[in-house]
Amino acid sequence: MKSGLSFDPARLMAEMGARARSAARILAAAPTAQKAGAIRAAAAAIRANRATILAANTKDMAAAAHLSPAMQDRLKLDDSRIEAMAAGLDVVADLPDPVGEIIREWDRPNGLHFRQVRVPLGVVGIIYESRPNVTADAGVLCLMAGNACILRGGSEALATSRAIHAALLEGLRASGLPEDAIQLVPTSDRAMVGAMLAASGLIDILIPRGGKNLVARVQAEARVPVLAHLDGNNHVYVDRAADPAKASAIVLNAKMRRTGVCGAMETLLIDQSATNMAPMLLETLLDSGCELRVTPDLLPLDTRLKPADPEDWDTEYLDSIASVATVDGVEGAIAHIAAHGSHHTDAIVTEDTATADRFLAAVDSAIVLWNASTQFADGGEFGFGAEIGIATGRLHARGPVALEGLTTYKTVVLGTGQTRP
Amino acid sequence: MKSGLSFDPARLMAEMGARARSAARILAAAPTAQKAGAIRAAAAAIRANRATILAANTKDMAAAAHLSPAMQDRLKLDDSRIEAMAAGLDVVADLPDPVGEIIREWDRPNGLHFRQVRVPLGVVGIIYESRPNVTADAGVLCLMAGNACILRGGSEALATSRAIHAALLEGLRASGLPEDAIQLVPTSDRAMVGAMLAASGLIDILIPRGGKNLVARVQAEARVPVLAHLDGNNHVYVDRAADPAKASAIVLNAKMRRTGVCGAMETLLIDQSATNMAPMLLETLLDSGCELRVTPDLLPLDTRLKPADPEDWDTEYLDSIASVATVDGVEGAIAHIAAHGSHHTDAIVTEDTATADRFLAAVDSAIVLWNASTQFADGGEFGFGAEIGIATGRLHARGPVALEGLTTYKTVVLGTGQTRP
Repeated sequence: MKSGLSFDPARLMAEMGARARSAARILAAAPTAQKAGAIRAAAAAIRANRATILAANTKDMAAAAHLSPAMQDRLKLDDSRIEAMAAGLDVVADLPDPVGEIIREWDRPNGLHFRQVRVPLGVVGIIYESRPNVTADAGVLCLMAGNACILRGGSEALATSRAIHAALLEGLRASGLPEDAIQLVPTSDRAMVGAMLAASGLIDILIPRGGKNLVARVQAEARVPVLAHLDGNNHVYVDRAADPAKASAIVLNAKMRRTGVCGAMETLLIDQSATNMAPMLLETLLDSGCELRVTPDLLPLDTRLKPADPEDWDTEYLDSIASVATVDGVEGAIAHIAAHGSHHTDAIVTEDTATADRFLAAVDSAIVLWNASTQFADGGEFGFGAEIGIATGRLHARGPVALEGLTTYKTVVLGTGQTRP
Repeated sequence: MKSGLSFDPARLMAEMGARARSAARILAAAPTAQKAGAIRAAAAAIRANRATILAANTKDMAAAAHLSPAMQDRLKLDDSRIEAMAAGLDVVADLPDPVGEIIREWDRPNGLHFRQVRVPLGVVGIIYESRPNVTADAGVLCLMAGNACILRGGSEALATSRAIHAALLEGLRASGLPEDAIQLVPTSDRAMVGAMLAASGLIDILIPRGGKNLVARVQAEARVPVLAHLDGNNHVYVDRAADPAKASAIVLNAKMRRTGVCGAMETLLIDQSATNMAPMLLETLLDSGCELRVTPDLLPLDTRLKPADPEDWDTEYLDSIASVATVDGVEGAIAHIAAHGSHHTDAIVTEDTATADRFLAAVDSAIVLWNASTQFADGGEFGFGAEIGIATGRLHARGPVALEGLTTYKTVVLGTGQTRP
């Protein structure tokens, strides 16, 4: 934006989009080694420019005194966080390149040979909040999958994001890839978020990363497909045929390992025929410091229990709080999750295979687990090496989205002169 | 809608959506035989109720005198069209059921077993125009893939669609599936289209089938993911290394086999080093009755040629008209298609493998062909048995969309008590 000219968000978006499209064409055909080389060079540049990045972060932090301690913590970088960021880039550089993978091949009686081939999505827009490391993570994940990206970070992290972005550009230059492959929106003007949401034809898919307000706004207003999760209102159902020791360990881990992650359990469902396990499960959670809001039948079990309000069943606490309901067996659990779940991650604990199969088939969530903690809802734990987010919609990428989720496919048809009768 | 009450489109949509969601839960777990049985019973009911359907169609036709002959032809049913509709249903009943297919499985070092399983999309909304057979086709394709659907047909076909829909309901009843699985919007009020476009959370994906105005409105206004193609501005590039006989046959077939289909060639690109083939290719098309609008260098070749205007390169004629440009080899063809293509279907004719590989990799369309006609852009020709449309967006289903394109997946995680460290 030249000084003296009025700022036109749609025009800036159109310019950035056109440059991203040109870069995307080059990236789509870029060899794996070239993309990986750019990412490794970016990691090296982050390490080499640590002092510059820290200075920029100090500037952002100085202006962030009005933010909550949690937001300030997300914004703050130090030596170890910068090294972790660089190491994360090296991990992505070593991941298998999904582009060009042949998903399937088949022949037709007329001799035509069909081949579905994985190709990049194109131009990915990412709107995120205060964590400046998203600039690096999201940028290189898009790059490795052959996509150009347009990054719009939180305004409170703009100086830090610019310093990180400069290191990414060093990586692109070092391997001969276009700098337009990873673009950072150069202004903190909120109007650019609106311009990105309206960028149909310029941005192929939008990924919001941040709090509920951001994600809800993007989902409500976007004219571009969105890959996002809004809530992780996750359930663990303990069946009458559960192994008590497994149930106790899984429930405790699902709730309390980290309460602020989207894979955390928010509601515990206990089979009404598993009354022998209920006191032990509740005591385990209460003793770990978890507040429990429960159905009336459970209240007499412990004086520390509180009655649940109806809205508790729809609440993602992201805190040391859980709601607990007794349900009428696996069908009751399925019905409760259908009514209150958010299609993120739900688990059953049981030793009965038929009951587990019923739950795994009927619960309509991106991730369903049998005898394992919901906190495994994570791209790294899936073996994807990284993730750009967890999608709870019904589009082509569901659950943890990593490199493969950043691609689509095309069909290549090989003929010998066939015409259609 | 009860008489005396004002019509509330959002409320009707919410009611239909809630009933569709309930039906979708049942369909998601319905065995293949039950779904196929419902479809076969619907085909039988269409045949048995032929007279009723024809009477309804006569009523629609009587009110359609103001429509164009082409639209009247699309609307009109006769015995053979009704039999073709029923036979089409029997074909779908025999297709392999995608639901439950295990896409891939893998293990992690901690013993967790991961399984990606194909599941239905959920509730599919279909907005279409005058062809009443879409009521049957789309309804049963959604059903076979385990989805509930909400159909909004053209107002001019409402009586016919209702009669066909009644036969589909007979099929659902006969096999014990919920009638809410296939719902027809009961009013021709245009406000219901708006209500469907805004039905986020009620409809999981919208498929518009019809003319450009309809598709463009849906893409511009929808708050729900859309699977659609707007244009089929398809190219055939004849390379210097093309076999002249193959080139001639493919170009003629791609343009003239049927000019009104979305896979028809609209622009012929000729390598400027293939000047020996240009007169023959142009003469073949001209002799078949095709009007040609060409670049200035080609004009002297035949007195019947007309000069192309700039907008010709972006025009989908859907008629016996084509534009023709000479280009600077395969790179010129790739650049022309990048500038003017619609990401639908593009073909190269060449005997040079390296040139073909370059074209197939660089042209960013849902379908790319080597030495075959663009008119193969069709789910049936792909071996899918049917199609609900051809998607040119970048979402999970690209190209011809059939049963598999009407599904997504979830990840099932099988553990033995694992908790996350």
